[in-house]
Amino acid sequence: MVPRYARPAMTAIWEPEARYKIWFEIEAHATQKLGELGVVPMSGAKALWDWWATKPSIDVAAIDAIEAVTKHDVIAFLDWVAQQVGPEARFMHQGMTSSDVLDTTLSVQLAKAADILLEDLDALLAAIKRRAFEHKYTPTIGRSHGIHAEPTTFGKKLAEAYAEFSRNKARLQFARAEIATCAISGAVGTFANIDPSVEEYVAEQMGLSVEPVSTQVIPRDRHAFFFATLGVIASSIERLATEIRHLQRTEVLEAEEYFSPGQKGSSAMPHKRNPVLTENLTGLARVVRSAVTPALENVALWHERDISHSSVERYIGPDATITLDFALARLTGVVDKLVIYPERMQKNLDRMGGLVHSQRVLLALTQAGLERDASYRLVQRNAMKVWESDGQLSLLELLKADPEVAAALTTEQLEERFNLDYHFKAVDVIFDRVFGA
Amino acid sequence: MVPRYARPAMTAIWEPEARYKIWFEIEAHATQKLGELGVVPMSGAKALWDWWATKPSIDVAAIDAIEAVTKHDVIAFLDWVAQQVGPEARFMHQGMTSSDVLDTTLSVQLAKAADILLEDLDALLAAIKRRAFEHKYTPTIGRSHGIHAEPTTFGKKLAEAYAEFSRNKARLQFARAEIATCAISGAVGTFANIDPSVEEYVAEQMGLSVEPVSTQVIPRDRHAFFFATLGVIASSIERLATEIRHLQRTEVLEAEEYFSPGQKGSSAMPHKRNPVLTENLTGLARVVRSAVTPALENVALWHERDISHSSVERYIGPDATITLDFALARLTGVVDKLVIYPERMQKNLDRMGGLVHSQRVLLALTQAGLERDASYRLVQRNAMKVWESDGQLSLLELLKADPEVAAALTTEQLEERFNLDYHFKAVDVIFDRVFGA
Amino acid sequence: MVPRYARPAMTAIWEPEARYKIWFEIEAHATQKLGELGVVPMSGAKALWDWWATKPSIDVAAIDAIEAVTKHDVIAFLDWVAQQVGPEARFMHQGMTSSDVLDTTLSVQLAKAADILLEDLDALLAAIKRRAFEHKYTPTIGRSHGIHAEPTTFGKKLAEAYAEFSRNKARLQFARAEIATCAISGAVGTFANIDPSVEEYVAEQMGLSVEPVSTQVIPRDRHAFFFATLGVIASSIERLATEIRHLQRTEVLEAEEYFSPGQKGSSAMPHKRNPVLTENLTGLARVVRSAVTPALENVALWHERDISHSSVERYIGPDATITLDFALARLTGVVDKLVIYPERMQKNLDRMGGLVHSQRVLLALTQAGLERDASYRLVQRNAMKVWESDGQLSLLELLKADPEVAAALTTEQLEERFNLDYHFKAVDVIFDRVFGA
Amino acid sequence: MVPRYARPAMTAIWEPEARYKIWFEIEAHATQKLGELGVVPMSGAKALWDWWATKPSIDVAAIDAIEAVTKHDVIAFLDWVAQQVGPEARFMHQGMTSSDVLDTTLSVQLAKAADILLEDLDALLAAIKRRAFEHKYTPTIGRSHGIHAEPTTFGKKLAEAYAEFSRNKARLQFARAEIATCAISGAVGTFANIDPSVEEYVAEQMGLSVEPVSTQVIPRDRHAFFFATLGVIASSIERLATEIRHLQRTEVLEAEEYFSPGQKGSSAMPHKRNPVLTENLTGLARVVRSAVTPALENVALWHERDISHSSVERYIGPDATITLDFALARLTGVVDKLVIYPERMQKNLDRMGGLVHSQRVLLALTQAGLERDASYRLVQRNAMKVWESDGQLSLLELLKADPEVAAALTTEQLEERFNLDYHFKAVDVIFDRVFGA
Repeated sequence: MVPRYARPAMTAIWEPEARYKIWFEIEAHATQKLGELGVVPMSGAKALWDWWATKPSIDVAAIDAIEAVTKHDVIAFLDWVAQQVGPEARFMHQGMTSSDVLDTTLSVQLAKAADILLEDLDALLAAIKRRAFEHKYTPTIGRSHGIHAEPTTFGKKLAEAYAEFSRNKARLQFARAEIATCAISGAVGTFANIDPSVEEYVAEQMGLSVEPVSTQVIPRDRHAFFFATLGVIASSIERLATEIRHLQRTEVLEAEEYFSPGQKGSSAMPHKRNPVLTENLTGLARVVRSAVTPALENVALWHERDISHSSVERYIGPDATITLDFALARLTGVVDKLVIYPERMQKNLDRMGGLVHSQRVLLALTQAGLERDASYRLVQRNAMKVWESDGQLSLLELLKADPEVAAALTTEQLEERFNLDYHFKAVDVIFDRVFGA
Repeated sequence: MVPRYARPAMTAIWEPEARYKIWFEIEAHATQKLGELGVVPMSGAKALWDWWATKPSIDVAAIDAIEAVTKHDVIAFLDWVAQQVGPEARFMHQGMTSSDVLDTTLSVQLAKAADILLEDLDALLAAIKRRAFEHKYTPTIGRSHGIHAEPTTFGKKLAEAYAEFSRNKARLQFARAEIATCAISGAVGTFANIDPSVEEYVAEQMGLSVEPVSTQVIPRDRHAFFFATLGVIASSIERLATEIRHLQRTEVLEAEEYFSPGQKGSSAMPHKRNPVLTENLTGLARVVRSAVTPALENVALWHERDISHSSVERYIGPDATITLDFALARLTGVVDKLVIYPERMQKNLDRMGGLVHSQRVLLALTQAGLERDASYRLVQRNAMKVWESDGQLSLLELLKADPEVAAALTTEQLEERFNLDYHFKAVDVIFDRVFGA
Repeated sequence: MVPRYARPAMTAIWEPEARYKIWFEIEAHATQKLGELGVVPMSGAKALWDWWATKPSIDVAAIDAIEAVTKHDVIAFLDWVAQQVGPEARFMHQGMTSSDVLDTTLSVQLAKAADILLEDLDALLAAIKRRAFEHKYTPTIGRSHGIHAEPTTFGKKLAEAYAEFSRNKARLQFARAEIATCAISGAVGTFANIDPSVEEYVAEQMGLSVEPVSTQVIPRDRHAFFFATLGVIASSIERLATEIRHLQRTEVLEAEEYFSPGQKGSSAMPHKRNPVLTENLTGLARVVRSAVTPALENVALWHERDISHSSVERYIGPDATITLDFALARLTGVVDKLVIYPERMQKNLDRMGGLVHSQRVLLALTQAGLERDASYRLVQRNAMKVWESDGQLSLLELLKADPEVAAALTTEQLEERFNLDYHFKAVDVIFDRVFGA
Repeated sequence: MVPRYARPAMTAIWEPEARYKIWFEIEAHATQKLGELGVVPMSGAKALWDWWATKPSIDVAAIDAIEAVTKHDVIAFLDWVAQQVGPEARFMHQGMTSSDVLDTTLSVQLAKAADILLEDLDALLAAIKRRAFEHKYTPTIGRSHGIHAEPTTFGKKLAEAYAEFSRNKARLQFARAEIATCAISGAVGTFANIDPSVEEYVAEQMGLSVEPVSTQVIPRDRHAFFFATLGVIASSIERLATEIRHLQRTEVLEAEEYFSPGQKGSSAMPHKRNPVLTENLTGLARVVRSAVTPALENVALWHERDISHSSVERYIGPDATITLDFALARLTGVVDKLVIYPERMQKNLDRMGGLVHSQRVLLALTQAGLERDASYRLVQRNAMKVWESDGQLSLLELLKADPEVAAALTTEQLEERFNLDYHFKAVDVIFDRVFGA
């Protein structure tokens, strides 16, 4: 975890106190059910919940001190709870193994993390939607291969991002449902020393589903899929960040990350406003993605379990979720405050002197009865002049002045072919599809 | 594609002929709709479908020859079709771009690939299920960290694999639905020269959903998610393959890949039967997984599109799907014919002289009124003798002969604690959860 | 292997015939040494080499047919050779295991592949060097964050690429030396049935070094390091390809991939020349890099060896080397024929109206005795006008006309600050460092 | 960084104080050289070094407080130094850019990290060597595919690890030399405002080589190669860790991680000593490896630089080096204290009832004049009995009692074929190669 790329709510999930609270709840719910089953006295759970009702703070240092002696984190925690609650605490953890607590806790943490990320996605989607409608009809050049292609609108470009992050939301909801399982099944998952109903009860209380079959641990394909999903979301962040970096480059400058009034660029040059936020997001995307491969390598544990996954998860659990949360929030801020320059978009659109419309003229000439080859030649000889002028000449004006062209098409017909609106007639359909009618 | 790791049905999806057939169908459906819209004469689509009804074979070499001249694959194909169909073919492809055809075709190919993989998963699940029920109550030792832990059943171990591959099936269904989209939207996705209803019609005819918004190409987050899902499935294959490799090792030998009667090991030594299929699967899992990172890197195309994704997909499209298909089928064969040695499982279970039951004896002594420390001491002094004998002594016999133990527990009580069935009482619950009641 | 991204010389290394030739040489050299040691008659090697001297062609189909029966590739090959050579061939392979042949052959293949890649790098370096000297003093704007920063020269930019690929050459030489080892050491690497001197002799004859200790196989950390090195080279290709893609984009257009005179863009628009080669190289870099992770995962074979690495290497061995060879050659062609537009570079340099020199003016004012704050204010008020004019105004002219500035700096002093040569004075030093004095 | 997987010396490299110290040294050396060049007064450097000679502590909090205002880390640091040193400090940083300091500092940090890792490797090599010689002739079974193959010695197995980590040392030395470069070359690497001799001087003082050509930043192929090398080392750690995990599993138990006398397993069962350290190392290897892909993705920065690499390096710089340092040290401890069971190795060797020698008997029968088929049949009919007895019968005894075998080979001849030393005769040669004669 790198503090500068971390936000408090997500970070809190991974702090010891939060983890211990989840441990307690799992243990207390299990004790409750064990009481109802008659395995332990009901007084056990009551004592635990009574204490919990006092909203006690968790003394992490004290637990650490016990762990330094016992060399076992769960036992240390149980001892500390017993010190607080008294002898009734001895009914905790009956028939359970450490992994029952540890793995179910990780499920809770990842589910909570997913909830924050889903909120992040909602905020991002809202920001994108607002800007998309704002620029629904702002003309801009569409580019394939980095080269001008045909006109589009800036709102339509943002609609693409909206659709992409909507898919990411659905994926994350799917992955969240997968990861949110509870396993309380003993040393090799046979429920030898604990009834399956305890697992079912705790799952329900903790808002989890029951792990149908476990092996001391929850199977790691669930975690692999979860982190793979985060990796896809990160790649979508990289895509939108890359788009903005392109738009901000000196020669394009169709949009810029917001600079606060007092903020200075790195020098005396007023143009030196760097897209540092989106560059940073590009890097953060790489970081989140780097969790995918080790998560996939974690799946093939030996037999009922080995513990090789654990150290990996100590890194990627916090790192991937905290970084992605930060990145989504940063991207939301970038989109929300993005400075958009419609005039510059128009200027760039026009910088080819109307060459982007040459295809439509070609078609018009053909429809007017000229051979395709002849049409092509007519367009090209004018287009080449425009091209060589680096956009200083206007294709429309040259065509109007070309007698062969003029013989085939009226000025009105020609001008119609340079009408941008021709390209925007389906924007409504697209917006309906993406944002709902 | 490595031929030895390829099966015909999946390979066929990626062959030129199959691709051209999909191209034709897309073009012909589009021409049909364009006819209905009045953009082109209805005779265009009719001529195409009439020719298609003759079940013509696709002359790949002829198309290649044209492409060598035109340097453009889609144009070469259209020219060849026009040669076959005649002048009515000129109404094909009106207002479309090459990517409309290429990208929709990739969707069809990946969806078909997913269908085969889903069948593969069904076959694998059926094999696992059959073997799981066959060995529902076959005792075997559960191992954590590679060390004997507590008894379980071999059927329960297979139930784990069943549950894991069931999840993989659900994931692949989700990913298939995501990838199966159709885009016919023009150079920058604005439908400038083609009506959105053409896209909708072709999508319906091809069994695809409509891409809500495209950019000349279908967004690559869909593909990234698809390949990431294949990577998760591959990791699950690695897990089960690793389990079998462990079971077959000389010292364990609880199960073996099937060797045909005539098949010889590599030498005169009859023990030299190597788990080469599951080792191979371990390697193939790495291969399938290696598609995930480049697929994630493909997402951030520049602006409306660049073509960097294309070369990547020429490798990973066939490689990941063909390899995974082969691997699933190979794993199904391995599971189906796996030679399972229950006697050896029992022998391994017993090799610790009953030490796996020591915990239950400890608990029994405590419940019989002894202090926990005293109980532990009693168990340990007998357990250590068993341990030092490398399993030659029997913990049960030693305990029976220990007067302090005998004072606390009757022979019957002791023997009950060595009862394997204690561990199997929830197998039914687990099977109900996994396979349905 | 994707044929369109493959060149014949590299592909040939991976074809069956080439492999069988290496097999033969290894076997024949070993038989020679075994003869000298008196283990087998000298007539064995003589018969082999006599046959080899006839330059026999390898009948791959015949060997395949035998393998279909024996189910063992090395035995099939030995049988086929025996059919050709006669009974003396029975002295081949004495005391050897299949892996002795297979693994040493892979070393030879990878070393040969490295030799081709080293030649590719030499060709690329030569092309870069030629263009670097050609444009040693061609002014162009240096960009950080995609934003204009300070002037540099195009030759200096190419010098960076030269230095980077020189490093890659050194890395590949290091990795080639590592991979080029010979192991002929028997079933678990103990030389139980073959003398170490055979290994030493074969190594020398095949141009390899001796593997100091092997385990039936050559340790896979060597291969992992080799493929990791290829991954680094691929990333350097991506960097230069990305640079060219940026330079070719419509708004920048400082350089373009070569288009042959007859070649048409995708439309009537003459600007539509897409950087498809460098986009393709970006994708191919992802493909080569994707070999790194599975190669790293191949290292941890079980005990003396398992065969999980083998299937992985059947993919990444050919794919990574063939693709990288193709990519290096393609990049060499791109660099060699790159169309460079110095006028456009100058135009882009000037497009900020001289703002790139504002820092130097600021410094000059300070040195002329003004307070830094005052200097900054003076520069900024003129710079902002230039900025707002989108480069239509000239900073130099505005400064000359600003009485406060004129009071501090003469016209000559001002003009000196707009002198591009100031930025180029160390180009010679850099070229000496990179290309040698 | 996960504290439990971190050691102080390596962690210290990445702490703010250490970074600031390097910053200071770079700035002070540069000021010194600028003084010698007459660009600034010599008093500047003198003031800096005089203050430094007082061994001042770095007030990280104070610098942070300034950065909170200036929003620029290097400026904040310079301001703080100026507060300490006084007005002479204004001569610092003349003509330099922040990246000159930041990137050169990262080089110093990575070089220092490499030095610690090289020490770690030396310690690991020493431990492996000691144990290798200790068990140079300890017989153990060699295993291919997890199946018993032929005898080897445990020392020879350790020699493999020694050779592998020796290679890793050479790789890291190569990578360290590559990463240890100094760049002080200005905004786009042209030395516009600073003389190249400053870079040369600082490089020499800091123990670095000169970056031949930079672009504001040091090219990231260097870093990519560095992290790729760490990834290879991590994979070698995984290999040795996996070997130990295999050896410790219940059925094998040829070696065990050391357990301190007071240490308890997880239960009353004395066999429950888990190889948790080597399992942990397996996971940590995945973590270190996960740095490779993002490091490769960092290479293709845009134009002269973008800042996407920076966030990645904030994670992987500390994480990969700290984790690898910890892992090497942990592995050294595991090897150093590994509990090795030669008797158990012998027992496992014998568990096949001598079947591992069947090949040698087969050869002996052939050499005694029997047909190969007949020999095979004789060996096999006895071998199968041994195999079916699960190693309870002895192949040697059965062969002695087989009249057909006895007719061909004397008892003495038979016994010679069961002599383990046959397999160990080249151990000396191997040790000479690996450890030096």
